[in-house]
Amino acid sequence: MPGPASRPARVSADFAAWLEHSRAAVDEILAAHLSEVEISLGPHSRLSAAVQYSVRLGGKRLRPILVLETCRVCGGPAERAIPAAVAVECVHTFSLIHDDLPAMDNDDLRRGQPTNHKVFGDALAILAGDWLAAHAFSLLAGDGCDRALVPALLQALTDGTKWMIEGQAADIEGERRPVDGELVHYIHEHKTAALLEACCRVGALCAGAPGDTVTALARYGRHLGLAFQIMDDLLDATGSPEKLGKGVRKDAVATKQTYPAAFGVAESRAHAWREVEAALHVLDPFGSRADRLRDLGRYVVSRDH
Amino acid sequence: MPGPASRPARVSADFAAWLEHSRAAVDEILAAHLSEVEISLGPHSRLSAAVQYSVRLGGKRLRPILVLETCRVCGGPAERAIPAAVAVECVHTFSLIHDDLPAMDNDDLRRGQPTNHKVFGDALAILAGDWLAAHAFSLLAGDGCDRALVPALLQALTDGTKWMIEGQAADIEGERRPVDGELVHYIHEHKTAALLEACCRVGALCAGAPGDTVTALARYGRHLGLAFQIMDDLLDATGSPEKLGKGVRKDAVATKQTYPAAFGVAESRAHAWREVEAALHVLDPFGSRADRLRDLGRYVVSRDH
Repeated sequence: MPGPASRPARVSADFAAWLEHSRAAVDEILAAHLSEVEISLGPHSRLSAAVQYSVRLGGKRLRPILVLETCRVCGGPAERAIPAAVAVECVHTFSLIHDDLPAMDNDDLRRGQPTNHKVFGDALAILAGDWLAAHAFSLLAGDGCDRALVPALLQALTDGTKWMIEGQAADIEGERRPVDGELVHYIHEHKTAALLEACCRVGALCAGAPGDTVTALARYGRHLGLAFQIMDDLLDATGSPEKLGKGVRKDAVATKQTYPAAFGVAESRAHAWREVEAALHVLDPFGSRADRLRDLGRYVVSRDH
Repeated sequence: MPGPASRPARVSADFAAWLEHSRAAVDEILAAHLSEVEISLGPHSRLSAAVQYSVRLGGKRLRPILVLETCRVCGGPAERAIPAAVAVECVHTFSLIHDDLPAMDNDDLRRGQPTNHKVFGDALAILAGDWLAAHAFSLLAGDGCDRALVPALLQALTDGTKWMIEGQAADIEGERRPVDGELVHYIHEHKTAALLEACCRVGALCAGAPGDTVTALARYGRHLGLAFQIMDDLLDATGSPEKLGKGVRKDAVATKQTYPAAFGVAESRAHAWREVEAALHVLDPFGSRADRLRDLGRYVVSRDH
């Protein structure tokens, strides 16, 4: 068992305002992007409506914020990372739509609203997810991305996406097996941490950061992702449906492979704290310019939704 | 109504042998590729098994053959197009797995074998399709592709994939509407022709062909794709399940938007011939080195499966 863990320091006083500002900025970027999508798909396309519905559902926008902020930390103007930021949110939204399907986690609510398939039916939901995935990768080939960076960006985002899917497959398969700590770790590392790692990698790449910087921020993203998913498990086990905007205690009913099930609530919380410590440790060489990333680390283990 | 159409000339005497040789070569390329996939996903992964199952089911391999042959016609060694050829087959296989799902076309048989979800369940089938799509795009970022070409290859393949998904969405939606010739054309152009267009574009790009050559071969691919899909509709309406390896008359039962339903069998056949004529016309400037592509055009409207 790893060493003791201490509760991370509190986030900076102005962090909540910064996070809300960043979230609103991402919402604006996404809204502008979606209006172009609507034009190309046609305003009367139900596929367009299904795509728009889930992207507009909101959420924390943690992944695009990570892309923009890691780009900024590496000295790049955040604008340069906008197409990649939209791309990671498209990948994330695609994964939510498919995960919610009756054949998968069978969720009726997401962010307090009916899930995509409840509104548009299973077929359109599958296709909206498929379309968002292909669209995400197409954004990397667009004019907004430096052409020389496209192979590395594409590799990072496809790796993160494939690992995420592999994690979801292990999650679904794991429902048939007794809870197993190693399997839980595999699932979390793939299902959640891989895409957060990709976000940080992609943001650093967009800034033209050198290889060791890209690798360091990718490690930060992986630790952050693990902490985030452990907290998600804890919130499902202990949180309120009103705050979360979705059903709770579903993991236990489905006998999911989760941290609390494998290690108990207290040890899971300690594990999340240790992951945040590791994430912050990676940031040491970055000095004060990485303060927002530090706050993000502290935030993911202190949130209640 | 367009002008009269005449049955295209017969394919060359040695075409069947060339097509079989090409198909076997693609099967070998895919088998070699899949063994690497199995290693990375782990031999005991059911996701790996689901991915392997559908890619190995066989089929005509028309899309990768088009990639390799258009590359060769443009003077590039076909080997240079191998990653892209694997990628298009991954996209095609992903689309078949998802199209066969109960929520979509609900097909139990594909190429004479149980469909992916009948063997692995709906959840794994959705994830296997998702994984294959992400994997397809990742291949374009790999070492096998010229890095300078990645943005154009990615654009071509994501465009083809998105249009294909838009076509499938229109197809599903069209089941609720009276048969409509314009809608049929939209569906066919998107669902099938767009990916065949992308195959030819991608093959020409891999050879480093100039823009007008890429555009010409893309047009050939679009006409070929339309002819191919009209024939698919005709085979569903008139063919035998033994030869096709899947159920027939399903389109009529589902009140699908098809050419025979919109225009009748004779006019649909004439339309397919006109598309092949148009495809061959595009090839005029290519001389004898495009003879295999000409044969492919004649073949798609003479096949019985």
